[in-house]
Formats: sequence, structure tokens, C-alpha cells
Amino acid sequence: MGGVTTVGDRADRADRVPKQDRSRATRQRLLEAAVACLAEHGWAGSTVSVVAERAGVSRGAAQHHFPTREDLFTAAVEYVAEERSTALRALFPQGAAGDRRAVVSGLVDLYTGPLFRAALHLWVAASNEEQLRPRVTELEARVGRETHRIAVDLLGADESRPGVRETVQGLLDMARGLGLANLLTDDAARRDRVVTQWALLLEETLG
Amino acid sequence: MGGVTTVGDRADRADRVPKQDRSRATRQRLLEAAVACLAEHGWAGSTVSVVAERAGVSRGAAQHHFPTREDLFTAAVEYVAEERSTALRALFPQGAAGDRRAVVSGLVDLYTGPLFRAALHLWVAASNEEQLRPRVTELEARVGRETHRIAVDLLGADESRPGVRETVQGLLDMARGLGLANLLTDDAARRDRVVTQWALLLEETLG
Repeated sequence: MGGVTTVGDRADRADRVPKQDRSRATRQRLLEAAVACLAEHGWAGSTVSVVAERAGVSRGAAQHHFPTREDLFTAAVEYVAEERSTALRALFPQGAAGDRRAVVSGLVDLYTGPLFRAALHLWVAASNEEQLRPRVTELEARVGRETHRIAVDLLGADESRPGVRETVQGLLDMARGLGLANLLTDDAARRDRVVTQWALLLEETLG
Repeated sequence: MGGVTTVGDRADRADRVPKQDRSRATRQRLLEAAVACLAEHGWAGSTVSVVAERAGVSRGAAQHHFPTREDLFTAAVEYVAEERSTALRALFPQGAAGDRRAVVSGLVDLYTGPLFRAALHLWVAASNEEQLRPRVTELEARVGRETHRIAVDLLGADESRPGVRETVQGLLDMARGLGLANLLTDDAARRDRVVTQWALLLEETLG
């Protein structure tokens, strides 16, 4: 509280900052390794030890950051979802700016690739595992709300008009379904045609 | 080939028919138990033994019908998908008949409930299990084509018009995404509003 900074304090702080940086970097490596691991091996093949090894971190350090397996994997999916949302927002600093198809395509891309695959494994595991279920339900609600907010912003959708909210929701449901269709085979060509057509339908509705 | 039926043949046949019926009934019980088991316990918790016990059938009899675990569960998802498709067609003997919302709602219902949950478990397991993957990929393609055909028929969609095919595909992707959204929580109220709105959009496009 506005105290005098002594030389000792300063030395102590200088020491602490890089340590915090290292700790943050370790955490990030663990989170990214956890998502990659879930996407590749599913929930059954994803343990804290496997992730720690992949991240090049000791098991003890991993458990210092994430005491339980549930902590690690829900944090990982949340972290990567936030990263991807931020990246999507950054692509359109001015919102749709007349190119709604590009926004729809960007939104759909959130649901293909390793992040969606990881989230899907977590989701399906949560439907059978009682310790995981409330955590994942809450996580999905939070990520879902944030994605909806981004979609409304980027599409320039006026949710005070009747039907607009449900139109955007249906679009995100479709994006999720397209992600699922891409799980076993490369569905990119078909997906592209669906995105083009639904971007047109959206254009008519959102005006 | 138009041979003479002897008394001995007839007796033999009379004997065989109820045995075939019993065999068909056993098969059906196994398939239904397999889908219920997948939906409740996921792939990891679903073995031939667990299903045989649930169906009240010996393990030997189960293996007579389905030599491998992969045979049993892919056959089960296919069988139940066919049953549900047939039931949906039966609901609309004259096609949409002016009520497209009811058709959209019926299509979306294919993706909620135990069948979708079972298929989803199989699907996600196939993404990590090499023996399962080609079987499930082929199954999904077949079931997907059949569902698309039903959707086109019931909606009275004219696929020779540009964009109509992709509109129907996108609708089925949305249905799949709505099924996923219903996995951990009861999403029926929101789903109902999305179905109402997208049935309206569809009406405008399909004419």
C-alpha cells in the first residue's frame, strides 16, 4: 500500500518475474499438450502423466498446476477455445464488413480441427463419467455463450429483431454438426458448399 | 427350381420356420440391447458379454450371430437407424403435406435420444480405433445418404434447383449439432425455438 521500495524488495521482484514467466510457460505447454493428447487418443488414453511427458514437464510440476485429471483437461479445452475465439475476433477487427460468408466460414472452422476433436472427446466422456459431467456441462455453457456473442458481433446481427437470436443459434448448431461430420473423413469440399449456401440464407434473414 | 415337394420336405420346413423366427427374435434383442448399452456406458463399457447378458442370451448364441464386437455394434446402430427412418417415413405417408415444421422436427428427433447417443459413442471411438474406423465410416455414409433421401422426400425438396441440396444437407448438419447440444443437458426448449425459426427459413428457400 504505497510503501517504500527497498533495494531488497526490488531484487526479490526481479527474481520473481522470470519465475512467474517460466511457470506460465509451463502451464501453457501443459494445456496445449493436453488438447493434442485428447484429440489423438481420446479420454481413455489421456492421463496427467502422458500429457506431462508430451509437454516435457515432470509429473510433479504438472500436478502442482493441475491437481486432478479433470482440472487439467477442462482447463485445456477452455484455454484453447479462448485462444481460438480471440484469433477469430482478430481476423475481423471491423466485424463482417460486408463479407458474411467469411465470418460463417471462420465460425465453422472453430468446430473442425484438433480443438473440436478434443472437446468432443471430453464431452462424450462426460456423458458417462460422473466426476467429469458437471465440470464439462459448465464449461460448454460458458464457451457456448462466448461463441454466440462473437457470432452476433461479427455477423452484425440485431438480436432485438424476432428470430435473429434463433437464426444465429441454429447456425452454430450447424457448425457443430459439420465438425462432427469431419471427424472420420475429410469433409472439407462438402462443408464449403454448405457454408456458401447457408451464408446466403443468413444474408436474407439478417438483412 | 420347381421341384416336387415331398412330405419329408414339408415337415422339415415346418420345423425350420419357428426356429428362424426364434433366431431373428434373438438377433433383434441383441441389437436393441447393444444400442442401449452403447448409449448408457459408451464404447469402453460395451462388450459382447455385457450385451448378451442384458439381452438374456448366452454368450455363445451372441457370438453365433455376431462373431466380433465390431460386427455387433455397427449392425446395432444400423438396425436402429433403419427402424427410426422407417418410423419417420410412416409418420408422413404423404410427405410434408404443408407442414414442413413437423418434418424438420421429426428429422431433428432422429438425432436426439438413445440412438444418436449410441451412434456418437461409436463414432468417437472409431476416430481412435483402427479396427472400428473403416466400418463406422462406411456405416455413417450409408445412414447419412438414407437420411438425406428421406429429408428430400418428406420436405418435397426439388434438388434440381441450385442450392436446394446444400440447404437440406445444412439442415441435417444442424440436426446433428442439436443432438450434440442435448448430450449433457436437456436442450429441448431451446431446440424447439431453433427448429421453428429454421423451418421458416427453409420454407422461404424451398418454396
